[in-house]
Amino acid sequence: MFEPWLIAPIASIISILAGLYFYYFVEKKDSGTKRMKEISEAIREGSKAFLKREYTILAIFVIIVGTLMGIVLPEPIWSTANPMENISMSLAYFFGAMFSALAGYVGMDIATKANAKAAYAAKGGLNKAFPIGFRGGAVMGLAVVGFSLLGISIVYFITGNARIVLGFSFGASALALFAKAGGGIFTKTADISADLVGKVELGIPEDDPRNPAVIADNVGDNVGDVAGMGADLADSYIASIVAVMLLATAISGTVGTGIDLIQIPLVFAGIGIFASILGAFALRIGETGNPGKALNLGTYITCILFGIFTLIATYYLQIPWQLWGAGIVGLSAGIIIGTTSDYFTSEGKKPVLKTAEASKSGAATNIITGFSYGLQSVFPPLLGIGIAAAVAYFLCNPLGEGYAVFGVGMAAIGMLSIVGLIISNDAYGPIVDNSRGIAEQAGLGEEVIRITDELDAAGNTAKAITKGFAIGAAGLTVIALLATFQAEVRQALERLIDSGAIQLPIGETIEGLLSLSLLDPQVLLGAFIGIAMPAVFSAMVMLGVGRNAERMIREVRRQFKEIPGLKEGKEGVKPDYARCVDIATTGALRELLPASTLTIGVTLAVGFVGGYQALGGYLAGSIFSGLLLALLMSNAGGLWDNAKKYIETGVYGGKGSDAHKAAVVGDTVGDPFKDTAGPSLNTMITVMSLVASLFAALIVQFNLFGILGI
Amino acid sequence: MFEPWLIAPIASIISILAGLYFYYFVEKKDSGTKRMKEISEAIREGSKAFLKREYTILAIFVIIVGTLMGIVLPEPIWSTANPMENISMSLAYFFGAMFSALAGYVGMDIATKANAKAAYAAKGGLNKAFPIGFRGGAVMGLAVVGFSLLGISIVYFITGNARIVLGFSFGASALALFAKAGGGIFTKTADISADLVGKVELGIPEDDPRNPAVIADNVGDNVGDVAGMGADLADSYIASIVAVMLLATAISGTVGTGIDLIQIPLVFAGIGIFASILGAFALRIGETGNPGKALNLGTYITCILFGIFTLIATYYLQIPWQLWGAGIVGLSAGIIIGTTSDYFTSEGKKPVLKTAEASKSGAATNIITGFSYGLQSVFPPLLGIGIAAAVAYFLCNPLGEGYAVFGVGMAAIGMLSIVGLIISNDAYGPIVDNSRGIAEQAGLGEEVIRITDELDAAGNTAKAITKGFAIGAAGLTVIALLATFQAEVRQALERLIDSGAIQLPIGETIEGLLSLSLLDPQVLLGAFIGIAMPAVFSAMVMLGVGRNAERMIREVRRQFKEIPGLKEGKEGVKPDYARCVDIATTGALRELLPASTLTIGVTLAVGFVGGYQALGGYLAGSIFSGLLLALLMSNAGGLWDNAKKYIETGVYGGKGSDAHKAAVVGDTVGDPFKDTAGPSLNTMITVMSLVASLFAALIVQFNLFGILGI
Repeated sequence: MFEPWLIAPIASIISILAGLYFYYFVEKKDSGTKRMKEISEAIREGSKAFLKREYTILAIFVIIVGTLMGIVLPEPIWSTANPMENISMSLAYFFGAMFSALAGYVGMDIATKANAKAAYAAKGGLNKAFPIGFRGGAVMGLAVVGFSLLGISIVYFITGNARIVLGFSFGASALALFAKAGGGIFTKTADISADLVGKVELGIPEDDPRNPAVIADNVGDNVGDVAGMGADLADSYIASIVAVMLLATAISGTVGTGIDLIQIPLVFAGIGIFASILGAFALRIGETGNPGKALNLGTYITCILFGIFTLIATYYLQIPWQLWGAGIVGLSAGIIIGTTSDYFTSEGKKPVLKTAEASKSGAATNIITGFSYGLQSVFPPLLGIGIAAAVAYFLCNPLGEGYAVFGVGMAAIGMLSIVGLIISNDAYGPIVDNSRGIAEQAGLGEEVIRITDELDAAGNTAKAITKGFAIGAAGLTVIALLATFQAEVRQALERLIDSGAIQLPIGETIEGLLSLSLLDPQVLLGAFIGIAMPAVFSAMVMLGVGRNAERMIREVRRQFKEIPGLKEGKEGVKPDYARCVDIATTGALRELLPASTLTIGVTLAVGFVGGYQALGGYLAGSIFSGLLLALLMSNAGGLWDNAKKYIETGVYGGKGSDAHKAAVVGDTVGDPFKDTAGPSLNTMITVMSLVASLFAALIVQFNLFGILGI
Repeated sequence: MFEPWLIAPIASIISILAGLYFYYFVEKKDSGTKRMKEISEAIREGSKAFLKREYTILAIFVIIVGTLMGIVLPEPIWSTANPMENISMSLAYFFGAMFSALAGYVGMDIATKANAKAAYAAKGGLNKAFPIGFRGGAVMGLAVVGFSLLGISIVYFITGNARIVLGFSFGASALALFAKAGGGIFTKTADISADLVGKVELGIPEDDPRNPAVIADNVGDNVGDVAGMGADLADSYIASIVAVMLLATAISGTVGTGIDLIQIPLVFAGIGIFASILGAFALRIGETGNPGKALNLGTYITCILFGIFTLIATYYLQIPWQLWGAGIVGLSAGIIIGTTSDYFTSEGKKPVLKTAEASKSGAATNIITGFSYGLQSVFPPLLGIGIAAAVAYFLCNPLGEGYAVFGVGMAAIGMLSIVGLIISNDAYGPIVDNSRGIAEQAGLGEEVIRITDELDAAGNTAKAITKGFAIGAAGLTVIALLATFQAEVRQALERLIDSGAIQLPIGETIEGLLSLSLLDPQVLLGAFIGIAMPAVFSAMVMLGVGRNAERMIREVRRQFKEIPGLKEGKEGVKPDYARCVDIATTGALRELLPASTLTIGVTLAVGFVGGYQALGGYLAGSIFSGLLLALLMSNAGGLWDNAKKYIETGVYGGKGSDAHKAAVVGDTVGDPFKDTAGPSLNTMITVMSLVASLFAALIVQFNLFGILGI
């Protein structure tokens, strides 16, 4: 009999094939003039150099962590009856890291090709250029979900053990954390250095080929926005599926026509991929000629298809409708959160207008106003995540014990189901941003630059909704992961009680032990540490950008000083682009290792000292403050950016005015907020949650507070 | 027989008498030249005008809220058997608000006298001026704790009901919220307007008498820093005592020689007042001539005296030593938190040095660096609060059920015990800051300005430790209040179960119902709303400052334009100071009402919709994010301020350099962070917690989720 869950690997393979189709669609387009090919090639080489350097260093880290994991997980190898499980755990972890790296590589590869091709096609108009940009992004989107779900399917098929799939997820997330934070540091390093020496000190235009940092800047868009963002969403995507699979094992039963609960997330994810593929193929600029609308329309179509297909599957497989409902609640919440986030960062709306107006009184009022609206912007999405989780919970609660949190997980699955298309839309942005840069550098003329500008603006429109998705999805995923952690602790406790290793105190129930009560001092202690962690992490990566930019600025200045004829733009004189890329790469990796290691290290320390109660509080605390800071930083950053752009349209004196200078300060502050620290936080809290679930059983057995009898 | 708790009212009365002694000590000093008296009188009048206007508006608010409270609390008047309790509740609330207002008034009154007297005494050297500044502050410190503890004692003596004392506490806190936020908006409005028009636009020096906003600026120091800060600490002080009294009723028993548990916080608080009085009298500049050291030495002496006296009391009353230990844990945590906060804002340390260095690359890097260190600075205090709470809990847990959270409350009591001296130190700051302004405006010469500068610098040194106390104390107090809320919910549930109004679900225990589990969807929903609230509140008051400053800037510009001879400093031409004070006052009140009403309104809405579970989560969420944001904003603000001051010593080009301009931007951003939003958050979360405890019983009975059967 055909097992319904096989829809997951089938959809994955089709997704990879569809990605390949788009790849060749883009590949066979013309890359343009010799100069364009040169520039594109330089960006490509820089990006590959970055990835190669990054992956080499990470390989060492992954091998160390994977080996250690295999030694102690799922049970310490010296006391387990089943050492094969330890080997599987290690392998799943390596596999997850590899798949994540591969997806990032493929996306980068095509993105760095599509940029020049889209720029060249822009000579033939918007309708020619847009599909190249979008389909270039779709390669990444479809590859990421295809590889991710295929990986999950393979690990699940071979081991049949959701806990081993958790190892896979951790591998993918650990790599995502490095990719996101490393890429984020790199991209801002290059951006700041290129702007500061080029625009500010020497007064040469953006993307000017004389600037030694210009290629690094373009590379940054790719490694930060394409590879990093893809890894980030992939990481939530995998984690949400695994979380729900693990929650299913806590219920352990079949529903409907006999489908195992554990397979429902796989079925829904598979359907989501189909919907995303159809949405990607259906996406056309059409008559309106508005690429922004086209991208959003593609998203809505995908959502509707997902709703219909899953409804049909729910009906035929006789899955309880509440589980479907929870998925739809999640998906709707994603759209609502996206739309409200949009308000706080859009050009025509009050926050941006007021921030632009405040720029008239100087940089300080620009910062205070933008920051204040950033603070306000956290309210709608947090409320949305809270309501979505509560509705899903209460919807599924009547189905029986354990179904309530399973429902919360299904909401996350629903929200993330269409992530294939979301990533496609998001990767479109940096591709066409690069196209604009190439058009400028290769001198393709004003009309082409205008078209690429329009393509670029559409990327920003789409980003508002996709960003809402990303944060909402991360929120629901980490709540599901918190539930997973609790379920893992429960199983460990039950095992220990059954084996007589520990005794339930008189008058105490397992529920009581597990409740993670807000007034339990261990939970509270953990929570206080947890809320500080995202703040400390953000600070480390942002200070890292500053240190790294200093190193690179020195190099850019040196080149302008020491290479004769460079400043004057003498024919044939070229800066040493590669050296800049190299400095930014090495520096980014040097800065991100401490922050990432701290994330994992403190999580384990809290668990092995304070026990599962402290770790539970720690997770909750870091989720709370992580979401708060991520929303604040992303939205304030976007808002400052658009306030500056609004002034550049000519209001308050336009470009070069005092108001503009003030707005530039805000924009510069916002850059590391929205491109480095903010987006890394999602991944950071996911990694923490996965580490906690993986080590839950060990921590229940061995922890300092437990040994001291506290 | 002498009841030990009577030490509380006795200490209060002695404290008020000691305050009076200091009052006359300061009062009989010379106020200096005619010009000085004029300026001092103008500040005094402005401050009184502000307070009068503020109190008039708040009186209406207080009467409305107090009446509504009396109608529904402790039980709705239409269903209570004991309507006298409702009247008592109303009266206690009015009483609390009145005492808080009175303490603010007294502090302001003496502060606005001491400023000129200290400035004049500075002619005779540091040793003459310092005692006036300090004892002026001590009037406020001793008055605040005296009135607060006397009020508590009276309400407790008359009603014998800790719940009515809670009404008193709410009255004091509600007023404190207005005083703090209103004063914070006022002070920054005046500061920004004075600087922007005076220093930036016209290039006239700070505190120049030609500037129409200069008196408002000096008034701001008094209403924001003296009255507002006093109200803030008083509010934590009262709330911590009441919280512990309520936690005691949940245990209900006597210990040791028969002292009622409920009276222990009163005994400790009374002893704390004695220690503070002795510390205040012992405080001398001495041989070293270093006022900063003198202030800190006074704090240490007070701590040691408190430790010894309470140890003796614990021994003679045979109170379990663990309760004393918890108090000492809290006190020590306060000092440790203060010392670590100091690191992040002190001139010689890395964060300030790095931020100053970053100013070389412009305003944006100054902001990013300072903000990043601000983010890092949250870690030590949060860890400190978490550890203090956990240690106190585990220390007292063996004493029996309910003692663990009682111990956490005792830690808060311990930390706040010496608040009389802390407020004295803190109020010293704005007094000598004003002295400096008066010395400048009255032309007392360079030597006097140098001495007042030195006095001012000492205020900042002391502030580092006192600020740590304020935040740590607020943290422990709100944890205790969360426990109080839980205890109130428990009593309400037990009452309802006993009366048969509700039934315990099968297999459920009261503990289970009360656990406020992090994975309960109602708790989680509440928590997500709770974490957003401090962010929204901060944004509202900061945007309020911006709007208010706009209004005032217009007025200052108008005066310079329309009053002939003002700009040129023509003899006999004076600006209209009063009008500026008036505009800032009206505007501040207009801006703070929505924010404060929202705080109370959303708290009630969450409770009456989502039930006590949602409200518990909401409180925890707002505590987490409130402490995070308060620490971030206070420390980042202090850090930017000192980075600017460091550059002004001559490094990186000193005053007027590009680095200095960049640092001024950071300082200006930091102003509303550290003086408006940051410090209001403590009070905000205390008010929320008090509202929750007050309405706990009603909410358990009536809430929408309950009615809908969720």
